[in-house]
Amino acid sequence: MNLESVPIHPTAIISPSAKLGDNVTVGAFSIIHPNVEIGNNTAIGSHCEIGYPTKLSDGRPLVIGEGSLIRSHSVFYEGSTFGEGLVTGHRVTIRELTVAGKNFQIGTLGDIQGHCTIGDYVRTHSNVHIGQASVIGNFVWIFPYVVLTNDPHPPSDVRIGCRIEDYAAIATMSVILPGITVGEGALVAAVSSVVKDVMPHTVVGGTPAKFICETRKIKRRDGSGEPAYPWTTHFHRGYPEAIVAKWLADTTSNSK
Amino acid sequence: MNLESVPIHPTAIISPSAKLGDNVTVGAFSIIHPNVEIGNNTAIGSHCEIGYPTKLSDGRPLVIGEGSLIRSHSVFYEGSTFGEGLVTGHRVTIRELTVAGKNFQIGTLGDIQGHCTIGDYVRTHSNVHIGQASVIGNFVWIFPYVVLTNDPHPPSDVRIGCRIEDYAAIATMSVILPGITVGEGALVAAVSSVVKDVMPHTVVGGTPAKFICETRKIKRRDGSGEPAYPWTTHFHRGYPEAIVAKWLADTTSNSK
Amino acid sequence: MNLESVPIHPTAIISPSAKLGDNVTVGAFSIIHPNVEIGNNTAIGSHCEIGYPTKLSDGRPLVIGEGSLIRSHSVFYEGSTFGEGLVTGHRVTIRELTVAGKNFQIGTLGDIQGHCTIGDYVRTHSNVHIGQASVIGNFVWIFPYVVLTNDPHPPSDVRIGCRIEDYAAIATMSVILPGITVGEGALVAAVSSVVKDVMPHTVVGGTPAKFICETRKIKRRDGSGEPAYPWTTHFHRGYPEAIVAKWLADTTSNSK
Repeated sequence: MNLESVPIHPTAIISPSAKLGDNVTVGAFSIIHPNVEIGNNTAIGSHCEIGYPTKLSDGRPLVIGEGSLIRSHSVFYEGSTFGEGLVTGHRVTIRELTVAGKNFQIGTLGDIQGHCTIGDYVRTHSNVHIGQASVIGNFVWIFPYVVLTNDPHPPSDVRIGCRIEDYAAIATMSVILPGITVGEGALVAAVSSVVKDVMPHTVVGGTPAKFICETRKIKRRDGSGEPAYPWTTHFHRGYPEAIVAKWLADTTSNSK
Repeated sequence: MNLESVPIHPTAIISPSAKLGDNVTVGAFSIIHPNVEIGNNTAIGSHCEIGYPTKLSDGRPLVIGEGSLIRSHSVFYEGSTFGEGLVTGHRVTIRELTVAGKNFQIGTLGDIQGHCTIGDYVRTHSNVHIGQASVIGNFVWIFPYVVLTNDPHPPSDVRIGCRIEDYAAIATMSVILPGITVGEGALVAAVSSVVKDVMPHTVVGGTPAKFICETRKIKRRDGSGEPAYPWTTHFHRGYPEAIVAKWLADTTSNSK
Repeated sequence: MNLESVPIHPTAIISPSAKLGDNVTVGAFSIIHPNVEIGNNTAIGSHCEIGYPTKLSDGRPLVIGEGSLIRSHSVFYEGSTFGEGLVTGHRVTIRELTVAGKNFQIGTLGDIQGHCTIGDYVRTHSNVHIGQASVIGNFVWIFPYVVLTNDPHPPSDVRIGCRIEDYAAIATMSVILPGITVGEGALVAAVSSVVKDVMPHTVVGGTPAKFICETRKIKRRDGSGEPAYPWTTHFHRGYPEAIVAKWLADTTSNSK
């Protein structure tokens, strides 16, 4: 068999009840379950299982926005909704009743436990675990092996999700304890255990995480000597031009 | 093809030597190798590889108890035995010569390295790594990104497994060092590195983990103001009624 | 269908452009893309995707050396090169433009982000994350849930890889910060955050990691009372006889 130019690979198993938009491609050995709506121009890789049925979905469909890319070996449950331009790495697992905005990018091995609210242009790197009831704003970055928790005294029936506000960045191997808010534009340093709220535009680090400095004190390592934060002043890869233009206009305005 | 109501999906590859009980279902693109015994009423998801051959199994079969559920993309080696009611998340990997009791629930991305002994009603959440030679009691809880280690000076040929006793709970992103015992009903707080034995019914935390308090000092966050531990007093989801009734009777008896 | 003695499983999808050596076996439901060269006597498990196309490969092929073993559910991008005797666990993900020497062994769930240089006889245990631009010497050991990072102020376009020198060992759940060098024969203890260079043949540990002792001060736990490091004096499993003989000769010579 030839892999190229086959919109729906002949080995793929597509439920006749699934609603696929125009130009949707589905890779070899992938399964699309019935309760699924996939937007136009979306590509689904090989070995995926899309729309895994669960009673916990309350009958809601899995909705994938147009222009999305789901890489191989990924599993999506029914009952979640993703805006346009979703991009995943390989073998992500996404459970029911999560709602995410546009251009959510989730790295390889990502594990989203469901019942989460996620804004626009959020990026999670490899192997990030988002516990149930997490609330994530817009333009947030979460790096490898970060866990957002929700149970204050496990095991229990209590679920107190974390809140990660716009433009915040959480570096590698950090854990956010239940109910914690990480403020707008804040940075959680690598290998931190965050046990109290993080003020906007501050850096915290350590176990337990403590205030280190304001984010603007961190200098870029690209030879410019300019502040590394807000990162919107220098990091633009993958964002729409109109958004970058606004960031740059804000920067110019702020530095006057 | 229609996914519903197909006990053995036509794309599944089942060795004629494998022993499948009554009402066993196998999902699309899954493989059942020869040296496998699967109990009645067990469901195996898509894209699994069950009974992966290994010389290290000493020829023993993989035995899955009745009423089990193995979710998609999981890999089980031959040579391990699981009691009834095994439940897995997606993409778990279980190697040879592990013996687990009834109703073991292992979360997505779980990695059990083999040669382990695991009791009844144990739950491991997502992305837990259980090193070889680990011994886990009954009703134990292990949360995401926890690692049970076994090599005191890696790399070496020495294997000193951890021992996790009944009702203990190990919270997110903690590492248990080789040969450590976590006592009955103890709680290891999130992001801990446990370098010495943990006394029963105590809380330890930090890197290295130190004694924090007795578990009964931790209050519930559900508005009741009652102690959060032992967790059997308030958390009952997924356990048999008879067991819960006994837990409640013990609670009443203890509080007199 | 019978799984045994089928060199290329009939369900496997092999591009006619892929170059497969003699005695190459490919498991069920695996995909070999066009721009791939696989050496003689290599075995590829089930559910793999080998040679995933990417523009970032600059058109270079994926090259797998002879005598390799790639276990199930693994994904390799085009554009990387591996020496003979590559061995992987299950569900590894390897991106483009990495070059690795002979007998690289990468554990289950390993995630190599690409653009890395890796020497001979390197072993990474389960669930290791190697960031882009990492440089790893020969005979290095990396244990579960270790992350090698590269971005000093994430997110940014700066990539400063780590350097791990020959015979170094990095224990479980440690993070190496961007640009750090871990010296020859050094040991990073479990659960460390390494923020400055590690001198050769020293042990560091903690968050942030600090000097603990010289590696030769650590005693073996096998009853011998001998030093545990260099580990080449006692740990030989899986290395060629000629290399082990040289290690033993060096040991004798050094202890005179």
